[in-house]
Amino acid sequence: MIYPSSIEKLIESFKELPGIGDKTAERLAFSIMDLEDEKVAQFSVSLMDVKKKIKKCKICNHLTESETCNICNDKKRNKKILCIVEEPKNVILFEKIGTYNGLYHVLDGLISPLDGVNPEDINIDSLVKRIEKGDFEELIFALKPSIEGETTMLYISKILAGFNIIISKIAYGIPMGADMEYIDTMTLEAALAERKKIA
Amino acid sequence: MIYPSSIEKLIESFKELPGIGDKTAERLAFSIMDLEDEKVAQFSVSLMDVKKKIKKCKICNHLTESETCNICNDKKRNKKILCIVEEPKNVILFEKIGTYNGLYHVLDGLISPLDGVNPEDINIDSLVKRIEKGDFEELIFALKPSIEGETTMLYISKILAGFNIIISKIAYGIPMGADMEYIDTMTLEAALAERKKIA
Repeated sequence: MIYPSSIEKLIESFKELPGIGDKTAERLAFSIMDLEDEKVAQFSVSLMDVKKKIKKCKICNHLTESETCNICNDKKRNKKILCIVEEPKNVILFEKIGTYNGLYHVLDGLISPLDGVNPEDINIDSLVKRIEKGDFEELIFALKPSIEGETTMLYISKILAGFNIIISKIAYGIPMGADMEYIDTMTLEAALAERKKIA
Repeated sequence: MIYPSSIEKLIESFKELPGIGDKTAERLAFSIMDLEDEKVAQFSVSLMDVKKKIKKCKICNHLTESETCNICNDKKRNKKILCIVEEPKNVILFEKIGTYNGLYHVLDGLISPLDGVNPEDINIDSLVKRIEKGDFEELIFALKPSIEGETTMLYISKILAGFNIIISKIAYGIPMGADMEYIDTMTLEAALAERKKIA
Protein backbone atom coordinates (compact mmCIF):
# COMPACT_ATOMS: atom_id res chain seq x y z
CA MET A 1 0.00 0.00 0.00
CA ILE A 2 1.65 3.17 -1.24
CA TYR A 3 -0.95 5.58 0.16
CA PRO A 4 -2.39 5.82 3.64
CA SER A 5 -5.63 3.83 3.40
CA SER A 6 -8.05 6.76 3.62
CA ILE A 7 -6.42 8.32 0.53
CA GLU A 8 -6.44 4.96 -1.22
CA LYS A 9 -10.17 4.63 -0.57
CA LEU A 10 -10.92 8.13 -1.79
CA ILE A 11 -8.96 7.46 -4.99
CA GLU A 12 -11.04 4.30 -5.52
CA SER A 13 -14.23 6.34 -5.07
CA PHE A 14 -13.17 8.93 -7.63
CA LYS A 15 -12.35 6.11 -10.05
CA GLU A 16 -16.00 5.00 -9.91
CA LEU A 17 -16.96 8.21 -11.71
CA PRO A 18 -17.20 8.28 -15.52
CA GLY A 19 -14.09 9.46 -17.35
CA ILE A 20 -11.92 9.50 -14.24
CA GLY A 21 -8.79 7.36 -14.61
CA ASP A 22 -5.94 6.56 -12.22
CA LYS A 23 -4.00 9.82 -12.59
CA THR A 24 -7.03 12.08 -12.38
CA ALA A 25 -8.41 10.17 -9.39
CA GLU A 26 -5.08 10.64 -7.59
CA ARG A 27 -4.99 14.32 -8.44
CA LEU A 28 -8.56 14.88 -7.26
CA ALA A 29 -8.02 12.92 -4.03
CA PHE A 30 -4.94 15.00 -3.22
CA SER A 31 -6.81 18.19 -3.97
CA ILE A 32 -9.34 17.31 -1.25
CA MET A 33 -6.59 17.70 1.35
CA ASP A 34 -6.07 21.30 0.25
CA LEU A 35 -9.78 22.21 0.40
CA GLU A 36 -11.19 23.98 3.45
CA ASP A 37 -12.78 21.67 6.04
CA GLU A 38 -16.16 23.25 5.50
CA LYS A 39 -16.11 22.62 1.75
CA VAL A 40 -15.14 18.98 2.17
CA ALA A 41 -17.94 18.54 4.71
CA GLN A 42 -20.38 20.16 2.27
CA PHE A 43 -19.16 17.87 -0.51
CA SER A 44 -19.57 14.80 1.69
CA VAL A 45 -23.09 15.80 2.73
CA SER A 46 -24.12 16.70 -0.83
CA LEU A 47 -23.16 13.25 -2.06
CA MET A 48 -25.45 11.59 0.44
CA ASP A 49 -28.19 14.18 -0.07
CA VAL A 50 -28.36 13.65 -3.80
CA LYS A 51 -28.68 9.93 -3.26
CA LYS A 52 -31.29 10.31 -0.48
CA LYS A 53 -33.39 13.28 -1.52
CA ILE A 54 -33.63 13.11 -5.28
CA LYS A 55 -36.80 11.41 -6.53
CA LYS A 56 -38.68 11.32 -9.80
CA CYS A 57 -41.56 13.72 -10.35
CA LYS A 58 -44.84 11.77 -10.23
CA ILE A 59 -46.10 13.67 -13.25
CA CYS A 60 -43.19 14.03 -15.67
CA ASN A 61 -40.37 11.85 -14.16
CA HIS A 62 -37.98 14.78 -13.99
CA LEU A 63 -35.72 14.95 -10.92
CA THR A 64 -37.14 16.62 -7.83
CA GLU A 65 -36.89 16.68 -4.05
CA SER A 66 -40.70 16.85 -3.68
CA GLU A 67 -43.54 14.71 -5.02
CA THR A 68 -43.73 16.79 -8.17
CA CYS A 69 -41.07 18.94 -9.80
CA ASN A 70 -40.70 22.73 -9.93
CA ILE A 71 -41.65 22.78 -13.59
CA CYS A 72 -44.89 20.80 -13.20
CA ASN A 73 -45.73 22.97 -10.17
CA ASP A 74 -45.10 26.26 -11.97
CA LYS A 75 -48.45 27.90 -12.77
CA LYS A 76 -46.83 30.19 -15.34
CA ARG A 77 -45.85 27.35 -17.65
CA ASN A 78 -47.84 26.74 -20.82
CA LYS A 79 -49.77 23.54 -20.06
CA LYS A 80 -50.70 23.02 -23.70
CA ILE A 81 -47.24 22.10 -24.97
CA LEU A 82 -45.39 18.95 -23.91
CA CYS A 83 -41.76 18.26 -24.75
CA ILE A 84 -40.69 14.61 -24.69
CA VAL A 85 -37.10 13.91 -23.71
CA GLU A 86 -35.01 10.85 -22.96
CA GLU A 87 -33.34 11.88 -19.70
CA PRO A 88 -33.64 14.47 -16.92
CA LYS A 89 -30.47 16.19 -18.09
CA ASN A 90 -32.19 16.97 -21.38
CA VAL A 91 -34.78 18.97 -19.39
CA ILE A 92 -31.91 20.97 -17.90
CA LEU A 93 -30.61 21.72 -21.38
CA PHE A 94 -33.99 23.08 -22.50
CA GLU A 95 -34.36 25.13 -19.33
CA LYS A 96 -31.01 26.75 -20.03
CA ILE A 97 -32.27 28.04 -23.39
CA GLY A 98 -34.92 29.92 -21.44
CA THR A 99 -37.33 30.30 -24.37
CA TYR A 100 -39.32 27.08 -23.89
CA ASN A 101 -42.21 27.58 -21.53
CA GLY A 102 -44.16 24.32 -21.88
CA LEU A 103 -44.02 21.13 -19.84
CA TYR A 104 -41.86 18.02 -20.18
CA HIS A 105 -42.17 14.28 -20.11
CA VAL A 106 -39.01 12.29 -19.34
CA LEU A 107 -39.05 8.81 -20.91
CA ASP A 108 -36.05 7.53 -18.94
CA GLY A 109 -34.76 5.69 -21.98
CA LEU A 110 -35.49 4.96 -25.63
CA ILE A 111 -36.99 1.85 -27.20
CA SER A 112 -34.11 -0.45 -28.11
CA PRO A 113 -35.11 -4.12 -28.51
CA LEU A 114 -31.48 -5.14 -29.11
CA ASP A 115 -30.58 -3.81 -25.66
CA GLY A 116 -33.70 -5.37 -24.17
CA VAL A 117 -35.49 -2.03 -23.78
CA ASN A 118 -39.12 -2.48 -24.82
CA PRO A 119 -41.93 0.13 -24.87
CA GLU A 120 -43.17 -0.99 -21.45
CA ASP A 121 -39.72 -0.36 -19.93
CA ILE A 122 -39.85 3.38 -20.49
CA ASN A 123 -42.40 5.98 -19.38
CA ILE A 124 -44.81 5.71 -22.33
CA ASP A 125 -47.88 4.56 -20.38
CA SER A 126 -47.73 7.59 -18.12
CA LEU A 127 -47.24 9.81 -21.18
CA VAL A 128 -50.39 8.45 -22.86
CA LYS A 129 -52.34 8.93 -19.63
CA ARG A 130 -51.17 12.54 -19.43
CA ILE A 131 -52.31 13.17 -23.01
CA GLU A 132 -55.69 11.55 -22.28
CA LYS A 133 -56.24 13.60 -19.15
CA GLY A 134 -54.55 16.82 -20.18
CA ASP A 135 -55.39 19.62 -22.49
CA PHE A 136 -52.30 19.43 -24.68
CA GLU A 137 -52.33 20.99 -28.12
CA GLU A 138 -48.81 20.07 -29.16
CA LEU A 139 -46.31 17.40 -28.37
CA ILE A 140 -42.67 18.07 -29.26
CA PHE A 141 -40.22 15.19 -29.55
CA ALA A 142 -36.69 16.17 -28.51
CA LEU A 143 -34.99 12.79 -28.75
CA LYS A 144 -31.54 12.20 -30.11
CA PRO A 145 -31.36 11.51 -33.86
CA SER A 146 -30.64 7.77 -33.78
CA ILE A 147 -32.39 4.50 -34.62
CA GLU A 148 -33.64 4.31 -31.03
CA GLY A 149 -34.85 7.91 -31.09
CA GLU A 150 -36.71 7.40 -34.39
CA THR A 151 -38.19 4.09 -33.23
CA THR A 152 -39.46 5.63 -30.01
CA MET A 153 -40.89 8.62 -31.85
CA LEU A 154 -42.74 6.42 -34.38
CA TYR A 155 -44.05 4.09 -31.70
CA ILE A 156 -45.48 6.93 -29.61
CA SER A 157 -46.83 8.78 -32.67
CA LYS A 158 -48.79 5.67 -33.67
CA ILE A 159 -50.33 5.28 -30.23
CA LEU A 160 -51.36 8.93 -30.25
CA ALA A 161 -52.73 8.87 -33.82
CA GLY A 162 -56.32 9.09 -32.60
CA PHE A 163 -55.78 12.20 -30.50
CA ASN A 164 -56.44 15.68 -31.78
CA ILE A 165 -52.93 16.89 -31.09
CA ILE A 166 -50.09 18.30 -33.17
CA ILE A 167 -47.01 16.09 -32.98
CA SER A 168 -43.71 17.69 -33.94
CA LYS A 169 -40.03 16.99 -33.53
CA ILE A 170 -37.18 19.40 -32.99
CA ALA A 171 -35.38 20.26 -36.24
CA TYR A 172 -32.36 18.28 -37.20
CA GLY A 173 -29.20 20.21 -37.29
CA ILE A 174 -28.05 18.09 -34.45
CA PRO A 175 -25.38 15.72 -35.82
CA MET A 176 -26.42 12.04 -36.09
CA GLY A 177 -25.30 9.91 -33.15
CA ALA A 178 -24.43 12.91 -30.98
CA ASP A 179 -25.12 12.80 -27.27
CA MET A 180 -27.81 15.35 -26.30
CA GLU A 181 -25.67 16.26 -23.32
CA TYR A 182 -22.92 17.81 -25.46
CA ILE A 183 -25.04 19.94 -27.76
CA ASP A 184 -24.63 23.66 -27.20
CA THR A 185 -27.71 25.66 -26.29
CA MET A 186 -27.54 27.77 -29.50
CA THR A 187 -27.88 24.69 -31.71
CA LEU A 188 -30.60 23.34 -29.50
CA GLU A 189 -32.51 26.64 -29.52
CA ALA A 190 -32.45 26.73 -33.33
CA ALA A 191 -33.56 23.09 -33.47
CA LEU A 192 -36.45 23.89 -31.15
CA ALA A 193 -37.55 26.96 -33.17
CA GLU A 194 -37.48 25.03 -36.48
CA ARG A 195 -39.35 21.98 -35.30
CA LYS A 196 -41.41 20.21 -37.97
CA LYS A 197 -44.90 18.85 -37.71
CA ILE A 198 -44.74 15.10 -38.33
CA ALA A 199 -48.32 13.97 -37.67
CA MET B 1 -32.72 27.31 -9.89
CA ILE B 2 -32.69 24.78 -12.72
CA TYR B 3 -31.67 21.77 -10.60
CA PRO B 4 -33.12 20.51 -7.34
CA SER B 5 -30.91 22.12 -4.69
CA SER B 6 -29.08 18.97 -3.59
CA ILE B 7 -27.85 18.42 -7.15
CA GLU B 8 -26.97 22.10 -7.44
CA LYS B 9 -24.86 21.83 -4.28
CA LEU B 10 -23.10 18.68 -5.45
CA ILE B 11 -22.26 20.35 -8.76
CA GLU B 12 -20.78 23.29 -6.82
CA SER B 13 -18.68 20.87 -4.78
CA PHE B 14 -17.31 19.15 -7.87
CA LYS B 15 -16.46 22.55 -9.33
CA GLU B 16 -14.16 23.17 -6.35
CA LEU B 17 -11.86 20.43 -7.65
CA PRO B 18 -8.98 21.28 -10.00
CA GLY B 19 -9.68 20.92 -13.71
CA ILE B 20 -13.42 20.37 -13.23
CA GLY B 21 -15.55 22.88 -15.16
CA ASP B 22 -19.32 23.37 -15.44
CA LYS B 23 -20.03 20.54 -17.89
CA THR B 24 -17.85 17.97 -16.14
CA ALA B 25 -19.22 18.90 -12.72
CA GLU B 26 -22.77 18.37 -14.03
CA ARG B 27 -21.83 15.05 -15.60
CA LEU B 28 -20.14 13.82 -12.41
CA ALA B 29 -23.03 14.96 -10.20
CA PHE B 30 -25.53 13.11 -12.38
CA SER B 31 -23.35 10.00 -12.33
CA ILE B 32 -23.62 9.91 -8.54
CA MET B 33 -27.34 9.18 -8.88
CA ASP B 34 -26.52 6.04 -10.88
CA LEU B 35 -23.94 4.73 -8.38
CA GLU B 36 -24.94 2.09 -5.83
CA ASP B 37 -25.94 3.50 -2.42
CA GLU B 38 -23.02 1.74 -0.76
CA LYS B 39 -20.46 3.30 -3.08
CA VAL B 40 -21.83 6.80 -2.59
CA ALA B 41 -21.75 6.28 1.19
CA GLN B 42 -18.14 5.06 0.94
CA PHE B 43 -17.25 8.10 -1.18
CA SER B 44 -18.89 10.45 1.32
CA VAL B 45 -17.08 8.86 4.27
CA SER B 46 -13.72 8.78 2.45
CA LEU B 47 -13.89 12.50 1.82
CA MET B 48 -14.26 13.22 5.53
CA ASP B 49 -11.73 10.56 6.49
CA VAL B 50 -9.01 11.98 4.29
CA LYS B 51 -9.56 15.38 5.81
CA LYS B 52 -9.70 14.05 9.40
CA LYS B 53 -7.16 11.24 9.47
CA ILE B 54 -4.33 12.34 7.23
CA LYS B 55 -1.45 13.96 9.11
CA LYS B 56 2.16 14.72 8.33
CA CYS B 57 4.85 12.25 9.43
CA LYS B 58 6.80 13.79 12.34
CA ILE B 59 10.06 12.64 10.78
CA CYS B 60 9.80 13.22 7.02
CA ASN B 61 6.50 15.18 6.57
CA HIS B 62 5.07 12.56 4.23
CA LEU B 63 1.35 11.83 4.58
CA THR B 64 0.35 9.28 7.19
CA GLU B 65 -2.52 8.27 9.46
CA SER B 66 -0.10 7.62 12.37
CA GLU B 67 2.56 9.73 14.08
CA THR B 68 5.19 8.56 11.63
CA CYS B 69 4.76 7.17 8.12
CA ASN B 70 5.07 3.62 6.81
CA ILE B 71 8.33 4.42 5.07
CA CYS B 72 10.06 5.91 8.13
CA ASN B 73 8.76 2.95 10.19
CA ASP B 74 9.99 0.34 7.73
CA LYS B 75 13.09 -1.36 9.16
CA LYS B 76 14.08 -2.74 5.76
CA ARG B 77 14.66 0.72 4.25
CA ASN B 78 18.24 1.94 3.74
CA LYS B 79 18.65 4.60 6.43
CA LYS B 80 21.82 5.99 4.83
CA ILE B 81 20.18 7.54 1.77
CA LEU B 82 17.77 10.46 1.94
CA CYS B 83 15.75 11.70 -1.02
CA ILE B 84 14.51 15.29 -0.81
CA VAL B 85 11.23 16.05 -2.55
CA GLU B 86 8.88 18.99 -2.78
CA GLU B 87 5.54 17.31 -2.08
CA PRO B 88 4.07 14.07 -0.71
CA LYS B 89 2.91 13.03 -4.17
CA ASN B 90 6.54 12.98 -5.30
CA VAL B 91 7.17 10.29 -2.66
CA ILE B 92 4.37 8.26 -4.23
CA LEU B 93 6.01 8.58 -7.64
CA PHE B 94 9.33 7.24 -6.29
CA GLU B 95 7.59 4.42 -4.47
CA LYS B 96 5.95 3.38 -7.72
CA ILE B 97 9.36 2.88 -9.36
CA GLY B 98 10.03 0.33 -6.66
CA THR B 99 13.84 0.49 -6.97
CA TYR B 100 14.52 3.26 -4.43
CA ASN B 101 14.92 1.86 -0.95
CA GLY B 102 16.14 4.88 1.02
CA LEU B 103 14.20 7.42 3.09
CA TYR B 104 12.54 10.71 2.12
CA HIS B 105 12.25 14.25 3.33
CA VAL B 106 9.28 16.26 2.10
CA LEU B 107 9.99 20.01 1.97
CA ASP B 108 6.33 21.01 1.45
CA GLY B 109 7.34 23.70 -1.01
CA LEU B 110 10.37 25.29 -2.69
CA ILE B 111 12.13 28.55 -1.85
CA SER B 112 10.50 31.29 -3.92
CA PRO B 113 11.00 34.81 -2.52
CA LEU B 114 8.78 36.31 -5.21
CA ASP B 115 5.89 34.19 -3.95
CA GLY B 116 6.80 34.99 -0.35
CA VAL B 117 8.19 31.51 0.31
CA ASN B 118 11.38 31.86 2.33
CA PRO B 119 13.70 29.09 3.62
CA GLU B 120 12.00 29.14 7.05
CA ASP B 121 8.61 28.49 5.43
CA ILE B 122 9.57 25.03 4.18
CA ASN B 123 10.88 22.01 6.07
CA ILE B 124 14.60 22.79 5.92
CA ASP B 125 15.22 23.09 9.68
CA SER B 126 13.89 19.59 10.28
CA LEU B 127 16.00 18.33 7.38
CA VAL B 128 19.20 19.78 8.85
CA LYS B 129 18.34 18.25 12.24
CA ARG B 130 17.83 14.85 10.62
CA ILE B 131 21.22 15.09 8.93
CA GLU B 132 22.88 16.13 12.23
CA LYS B 133 21.32 13.26 14.18
CA GLY B 134 21.23 10.63 11.46
CA ASP B 135 23.81 8.47 9.84
CA PHE B 136 23.18 9.52 6.24
CA GLU B 137 25.83 8.93 3.60
CA GLU B 138 24.00 10.44 0.65
CA LEU B 139 21.36 13.03 0.06
CA ILE B 140 19.54 12.99 -3.28
CA PHE B 141 17.67 16.06 -4.48
CA ALA B 142 14.62 15.18 -6.56
CA LEU B 143 13.19 18.66 -7.07
CA LYS B 144 11.66 19.92 -10.27
CA PRO B 145 14.09 21.61 -12.66
CA SER B 146 13.08 25.25 -12.19
CA ILE B 147 14.49 28.42 -10.67
CA GLU B 148 12.81 27.54 -7.38
CA GLY B 149 14.14 23.98 -7.46
CA GLU B 150 17.70 25.16 -8.16
CA THR B 151 17.52 27.89 -5.51
CA THR B 152 16.29 25.43 -2.89
CA MET B 153 18.97 22.91 -3.83
CA LEU B 154 21.76 25.50 -3.64
CA TYR B 155 20.50 26.89 -0.35
CA ILE B 156 20.36 23.48 1.33
CA SER B 157 23.68 22.38 -0.19
CA LYS B 158 25.39 25.44 1.34
CA ILE B 159 23.98 24.76 4.80
CA LEU B 160 25.15 21.16 4.59
CA ALA B 161 28.61 22.01 3.23
CA GLY B 162 30.28 21.17 6.54
CA PHE B 163 28.80 17.67 6.75
CA ASN B 164 30.60 14.59 5.49
CA ILE B 165 27.82 13.61 3.11
CA ILE B 166 27.50 13.09 -0.61
CA ILE B 167 24.95 15.44 -2.14
CA SER B 168 23.53 14.49 -5.51
CA LYS B 169 20.59 15.40 -7.66
CA ILE B 170 18.51 13.23 -9.97
CA ALA B 171 19.68 13.45 -13.59
CA TYR B 172 17.98 15.90 -15.83
CA GLY B 173 16.08 14.38 -18.63
CA ILE B 174 13.00 15.80 -17.04
CA PRO B 175 11.84 18.74 -19.18
CA MET B 176 12.27 22.22 -17.65
CA GLY B 177 9.13 23.57 -16.02
CA ALA B 178 7.36 20.20 -16.00
CA ASP B 179 5.20 19.23 -13.09
CA MET B 180 6.72 16.25 -11.21
CA GLU B 181 3.25 14.79 -11.03
CA TYR B 182 3.04 14.15 -14.77
CA ILE B 183 6.40 12.50 -15.31
CA ASP B 184 6.17 8.82 -16.19
CA THR B 185 7.94 6.37 -13.91
CA MET B 186 10.35 5.22 -16.68
CA THR B 187 11.78 8.71 -17.09
CA LEU B 188 11.94 9.13 -13.36
CA GLU B 189 13.68 5.81 -12.87
CA ALA B 190 16.36 6.74 -15.43
CA ALA B 191 16.79 10.14 -13.79
CA LEU B 192 17.27 8.46 -10.42
CA ALA B 193 19.82 5.96 -11.74
CA GLU B 194 21.89 8.68 -13.45
CA ARG B 195 21.96 11.12 -10.58
CA LYS B 196 25.09 13.35 -10.42
CA LYS B 197 27.19 14.28 -7.40
CA ILE B 198 27.03 18.05 -6.99
CA ALA B 199 28.92 18.63 -3.72
